[in-house]
Amino acid sequence: MTERVVLAYSGGLDTSVCIGWIAEETGAEVIAVAVDVGQGGEDLEIIRKRALACGAVEAEVADAKNEFADEYCLPAIKANALYMDRYPLVSALSRPTIVKHLVAAAKKHGADTVAHGCTGKGNDQVRFETGIASLAPDLKCIAPVRDYAMTRDKAIAFCEEKNLPIATTKKSPYSIDQNVFGRAVETGFLEDIWNAPIEDVYEYTQNPATPRDADEVIITFKQGVPVAIDGKQVTVLEAIQQLNTRAGAQGVGRLDMVEDRLVGIKSREVYEAPGAIALIAAHQELENVTVERELARYKRQVEQRWSELVYDGLWFSPLKRALDGFIAEANQHVTGDIRMTLHGGRAVVTGRRSDESLYDFNLATYDTGDTFDQSLSKGFIEIFGMSSKIAAKRDLAQ
Amino acid sequence: MTERVVLAYSGGLDTSVCIGWIAEETGAEVIAVAVDVGQGGEDLEIIRKRALACGAVEAEVADAKNEFADEYCLPAIKANALYMDRYPLVSALSRPTIVKHLVAAAKKHGADTVAHGCTGKGNDQVRFETGIASLAPDLKCIAPVRDYAMTRDKAIAFCEEKNLPIATTKKSPYSIDQNVFGRAVETGFLEDIWNAPIEDVYEYTQNPATPRDADEVIITFKQGVPVAIDGKQVTVLEAIQQLNTRAGAQGVGRLDMVEDRLVGIKSREVYEAPGAIALIAAHQELENVTVERELARYKRQVEQRWSELVYDGLWFSPLKRALDGFIAEANQHVTGDIRMTLHGGRAVVTGRRSDESLYDFNLATYDTGDTFDQSLSKGFIEIFGMSSKIAAKRDLAQ
Amino acid sequence: MTERVVLAYSGGLDTSVCIGWIAEETGAEVIAVAVDVGQGGEDLEIIRKRALACGAVEAEVADAKNEFADEYCLPAIKANALYMDRYPLVSALSRPTIVKHLVAAAKKHGADTVAHGCTGKGNDQVRFETGIASLAPDLKCIAPVRDYAMTRDKAIAFCEEKNLPIATTKKSPYSIDQNVFGRAVETGFLEDIWNAPIEDVYEYTQNPATPRDADEVIITFKQGVPVAIDGKQVTVLEAIQQLNTRAGAQGVGRLDMVEDRLVGIKSREVYEAPGAIALIAAHQELENVTVERELARYKRQVEQRWSELVYDGLWFSPLKRALDGFIAEANQHVTGDIRMTLHGGRAVVTGRRSDESLYDFNLATYDTGDTFDQSLSKGFIEIFGMSSKIAAKRDLAQ
Amino acid sequence: MTERVVLAYSGGLDTSVCIGWIAEETGAEVIAVAVDVGQGGEDLEIIRKRALACGAVEAEVADAKNEFADEYCLPAIKANALYMDRYPLVSALSRPTIVKHLVAAAKKHGADTVAHGCTGKGNDQVRFETGIASLAPDLKCIAPVRDYAMTRDKAIAFCEEKNLPIATTKKSPYSIDQNVFGRAVETGFLEDIWNAPIEDVYEYTQNPATPRDADEVIITFKQGVPVAIDGKQVTVLEAIQQLNTRAGAQGVGRLDMVEDRLVGIKSREVYEAPGAIALIAAHQELENVTVERELARYKRQVEQRWSELVYDGLWFSPLKRALDGFIAEANQHVTGDIRMTLHGGRAVVTGRRSDESLYDFNLATYDTGDTFDQSLSKGFIEIFGMSSKIAAKRDLAQ
Repeated sequence: MTERVVLAYSGGLDTSVCIGWIAEETGAEVIAVAVDVGQGGEDLEIIRKRALACGAVEAEVADAKNEFADEYCLPAIKANALYMDRYPLVSALSRPTIVKHLVAAAKKHGADTVAHGCTGKGNDQVRFETGIASLAPDLKCIAPVRDYAMTRDKAIAFCEEKNLPIATTKKSPYSIDQNVFGRAVETGFLEDIWNAPIEDVYEYTQNPATPRDADEVIITFKQGVPVAIDGKQVTVLEAIQQLNTRAGAQGVGRLDMVEDRLVGIKSREVYEAPGAIALIAAHQELENVTVERELARYKRQVEQRWSELVYDGLWFSPLKRALDGFIAEANQHVTGDIRMTLHGGRAVVTGRRSDESLYDFNLATYDTGDTFDQSLSKGFIEIFGMSSKIAAKRDLAQ
Repeated sequence: MTERVVLAYSGGLDTSVCIGWIAEETGAEVIAVAVDVGQGGEDLEIIRKRALACGAVEAEVADAKNEFADEYCLPAIKANALYMDRYPLVSALSRPTIVKHLVAAAKKHGADTVAHGCTGKGNDQVRFETGIASLAPDLKCIAPVRDYAMTRDKAIAFCEEKNLPIATTKKSPYSIDQNVFGRAVETGFLEDIWNAPIEDVYEYTQNPATPRDADEVIITFKQGVPVAIDGKQVTVLEAIQQLNTRAGAQGVGRLDMVEDRLVGIKSREVYEAPGAIALIAAHQELENVTVERELARYKRQVEQRWSELVYDGLWFSPLKRALDGFIAEANQHVTGDIRMTLHGGRAVVTGRRSDESLYDFNLATYDTGDTFDQSLSKGFIEIFGMSSKIAAKRDLAQ
Repeated sequence: MTERVVLAYSGGLDTSVCIGWIAEETGAEVIAVAVDVGQGGEDLEIIRKRALACGAVEAEVADAKNEFADEYCLPAIKANALYMDRYPLVSALSRPTIVKHLVAAAKKHGADTVAHGCTGKGNDQVRFETGIASLAPDLKCIAPVRDYAMTRDKAIAFCEEKNLPIATTKKSPYSIDQNVFGRAVETGFLEDIWNAPIEDVYEYTQNPATPRDADEVIITFKQGVPVAIDGKQVTVLEAIQQLNTRAGAQGVGRLDMVEDRLVGIKSREVYEAPGAIALIAAHQELENVTVERELARYKRQVEQRWSELVYDGLWFSPLKRALDGFIAEANQHVTGDIRMTLHGGRAVVTGRRSDESLYDFNLATYDTGDTFDQSLSKGFIEIFGMSSKIAAKRDLAQ
Repeated sequence: MTERVVLAYSGGLDTSVCIGWIAEETGAEVIAVAVDVGQGGEDLEIIRKRALACGAVEAEVADAKNEFADEYCLPAIKANALYMDRYPLVSALSRPTIVKHLVAAAKKHGADTVAHGCTGKGNDQVRFETGIASLAPDLKCIAPVRDYAMTRDKAIAFCEEKNLPIATTKKSPYSIDQNVFGRAVETGFLEDIWNAPIEDVYEYTQNPATPRDADEVIITFKQGVPVAIDGKQVTVLEAIQQLNTRAGAQGVGRLDMVEDRLVGIKSREVYEAPGAIALIAAHQELENVTVERELARYKRQVEQRWSELVYDGLWFSPLKRALDGFIAEANQHVTGDIRMTLHGGRAVVTGRRSDESLYDFNLATYDTGDTFDQSLSKGFIEIFGMSSKIAAKRDLAQ
């Protein structure tokens, strides 16, 4: 029986060529799987037909937008996940979503190998392959670009030789990955890290410098989940989409950074993630209001490790699951409204209200109604600082 | 011999009244000490004379602006210190500076007590008193507002009764603390956390929403220290001041947050710190370029703990010193230029260059010149993911 | 209506005197509550009657041994909880157990205050009062020794004056706290930290130096819970009790340390915890076999924080709950047998077996059957070390 | 010109065969380098001659015992370095020592490659190669066992065919690595993790179960460095050696564990490290006496990360250096005497004294002389527990 390979299929030139390339290299039948995580572009049905036209024996397409939002973006929001304090893990979140569909297709179609279009120097190859190893440890992984030296030029030649129904238009100067949670742009003139990005690289966001009226939005969370915008119920997907539109129109969510890749190198990345950045900013401030101090302090460390793990492709790892247990508990009371002004590239919280608030006006106020017993402070300070004071006595004596 | 009390003196109503109030409560002589950490306002000499006029037996004033910038703000910049990922520790940094001068004055003048004007529900009382305990464990601390029930109303009455040379003008609706590193505003209508700040509360920053031209700045760091702006050598103090002006003019550095105080309550704080925020953003990105990944990941945790310690008043503590050892080592190579656009409330890095850069174009590029050996990745991924994969095999079997 | 105070009652001199002392100080009725957490000693019914004889208006006694083992000791075992890498939190675990009963009694009997017999310089006062604040924030707390200056001498005088039915025998030279999870001894000649403990201070353990035959035990865990000993089903309480006996007979679990108290001072503590130490050692090694590396590495940090929190009296705090979420997840697969030799003061693991083992003989062996693909290592090492290598290139160039 | 390879040479069969094997595989000249880190066995001069007899063009030997003790073991003692809370990093510390000598020899002899005798599934290959990459990024690395399929059987055949002057005696059933800091034993029947070790596997330690008299020792530290034993000045090397003898004679320092290797698998390891375990136990307790609480708490996390880094072969990495900065500062006051009883496999601290002690008898005592002001505690507890209490109020209301 012929071996079968499931291919992560995008509909573009590279993965279209992969279909035939893999078949030639391995003799296997190729099953194309396209997963819609909100990357936009062509209709799934068109993509499905193209895969078949390019030689796939089967082609599966899946609208995973809600799955992506609910099971991958939402945990990132609850974790205030910002890799290196900046990057909301846009691509890193989509990979495990896609992996799940690839593994399901491999089981359904009896494939023993999964293929993806990544190069050998990025993070995504790791995310695909460790994801697959965790969901189906017996599946093999191949990456034609990395393992079979399938360069861009060779792909175009292959495409023309086989007369594949894909336009071999001149490639974008940038390498782009996008989904509903954001958009990543790299390579091209951005590889010179002294160069500033130009407006040309952006698609999800308007120029923040353009004068326009501010937009005010109220985001309602329930146990860490965004459930309403301006009082209207939304799914997580809708929350992201609506804020992509509204925050994007205000230029919110542009990021430009030098990033530490898992494979050991530094790379220059430009991101746009208007909805993600607005939602995380709102969620953080609601946590400031509803999460107890020591839990909040520790959670910040957990958030960093969570972000590193997910960035590093360990979504399905045991540590990630255990951190999720912590984060779930920490979000139990993250319920309430955040009012935010979207304007000029900024998403600024201007108000918060919550039935679960730990902000106690009477304890906080310096005005009438103050219930804080200031006589307690003297003893607190003495004992709080005592270990330091005892050490100081010793140190000063020397 | 009469006992002597050193008082942290601001020149304002409260601490002017403290002079006589302390004398009446304790029978001690009061020595007023005013420390200029860039809070602006009156001339030090005027303040000195007022202290004497209000009954101080001695009055000392000190221009500590450079000391504050070099020894307190600079470590915070090197630590990218943002308490709760937001607040650049403006007041928390000034307290240990002032403490040093109070302790020196106490030694010089033979005082056995230090007094400060803080209330009993804020962080600053802790910062003063743990700081003093660490530098001079034998000094006692008193806080008339907290310990002798010196309310605002009583202070005004005292002032009028004693005919002190201070205007008892209507108090600002806000409680304000400011220095060269930033400005903190609290209380008043801001105590309702649903209320947005109004333009009225700001002094260091212009309205970011006002259309104006962008300002581009190049900040040069040497081993983590800002040493030049637009190619012109600056002291740390000048760097902060110049960026306060330029970033402030663009509305950069406004913060509005609910904050976890050390005394256990949450409070609403509004900050302006244009220079601090611009410098930290620049420093962070230069670290992204020059600091190795694992060191950078760990440093983020160290930064959080450092910020908590300093916020909590433990500037002079043993742990703070040991973290400083880590941070100093991590800043060894943080040398280079950061180009930044200041505009519309944002300080955005647009370029970085450094002789100490770990960004390697040839390893990063997807273009001609690529030296990354992609054949290494397969082995890396397999072994990197192996512990997770072995766990997955077990978990899936159940 | 007369106010009522619930008193944590031990049956001993101090808390027996507290009954009348509190009544005199406050005019309140006193309800005595004695909780059996395995401290041994007198029958609960005798204690109950003594409380009434000493003037309590009500006396409640509760056998909380199983509750203590299941809800307090077990989480500590799952967390491998050793404060300062040594102390298995014996007293720190019993306090929240007792607090729960005090609060229940206060609700039942309409009391608005809880009293305990702690001094003002130890950890237990904090554990009682923060525990009560978390379970019943409206209850007040009093501590006659601390708040009403009830010294030992005054207590004896009170006892004799009121003719209370308690023997005012000469006090033990040590201050002792014990329960089924261990025994703490402090004060007396141990306060000189150069003095070695003498055999006299120990009760739960035999002298490890005495020659005797070793004892071998097999402990079976299911999801982190000790469920059988030598193949015989046990409750958690029975597991602790049986190992107290068997490990105690071999001198296992003696600890002698200088400890950092929450109130800022260092104190000398001697502990015996044969069952606790044996169970934690066994649990740790079973984790080594069944928990994935990255989860295990992170869990060690969580364990330290968990131990600090519990030591510091924050059992019922939000952070403790969230860490419990992490620890529960991490214990999902901690199932299997540990064989241990108890002898000469040591509890040494000699064998482990588990259906959930992640130890893979075929990957580990250097013998026939080796399935580890060594060709992967080259690529792994290159990329694993790449960020360090790139930094080295820069650093060496200088 | 012929290429040259520097080989890490032990004098044993495997690396002796490597000399010729590498020459045949690569055509290069082989320079043998043997480094004495206290592994005992043959005289260095004999080893040097054997290398030449086996075909090395040059052979270098170095007595690095003091260097190993001072620059590698001592930092581990200061870090209380115990990987997985158990293993004192015996082999992991020797590798960077050897690497330094290999790199020096490569520079001296103009070699462009370094070879070592490790397999492809252990940690040591990583430690050698990342070490070399950090000290000499341009050197290549080869491992004949891993890269040229040099199995044990082939090595014996090669040896006999070439008539090399090495006895091809039957191999030990165990794989052993040893140096002055300890001894590691693996493989053989120990690969069945249910099997207990037998006396046969131990060399550095006597059976702890054998009755014998206890040995009492006083170890003096100065700023974390062991400087005297029983009052007699020692070097670090002498401290380790003397304690190896004395603690080893009492059976101290045996370890048996399942360990997480960097290459993703779990392996069974048995260690003996009598001197290391005794020194670390003493150092830890002296820290308990001399290091302030918050510094001590944070240091425990730093110690874990330090141990992981060193275990993982990142001795020369930027993060390791920065953690060393922290650890150096934390050891500033770790000065004093620790009295320890060595007996029956246990190294038990029984006394501590230090001019730098933070233990304050007058604060700690419950006897005459107590200076702790208990009235401070009430305020401390209220404010310390306030954030938890406020959260409890909210949570209980639901």
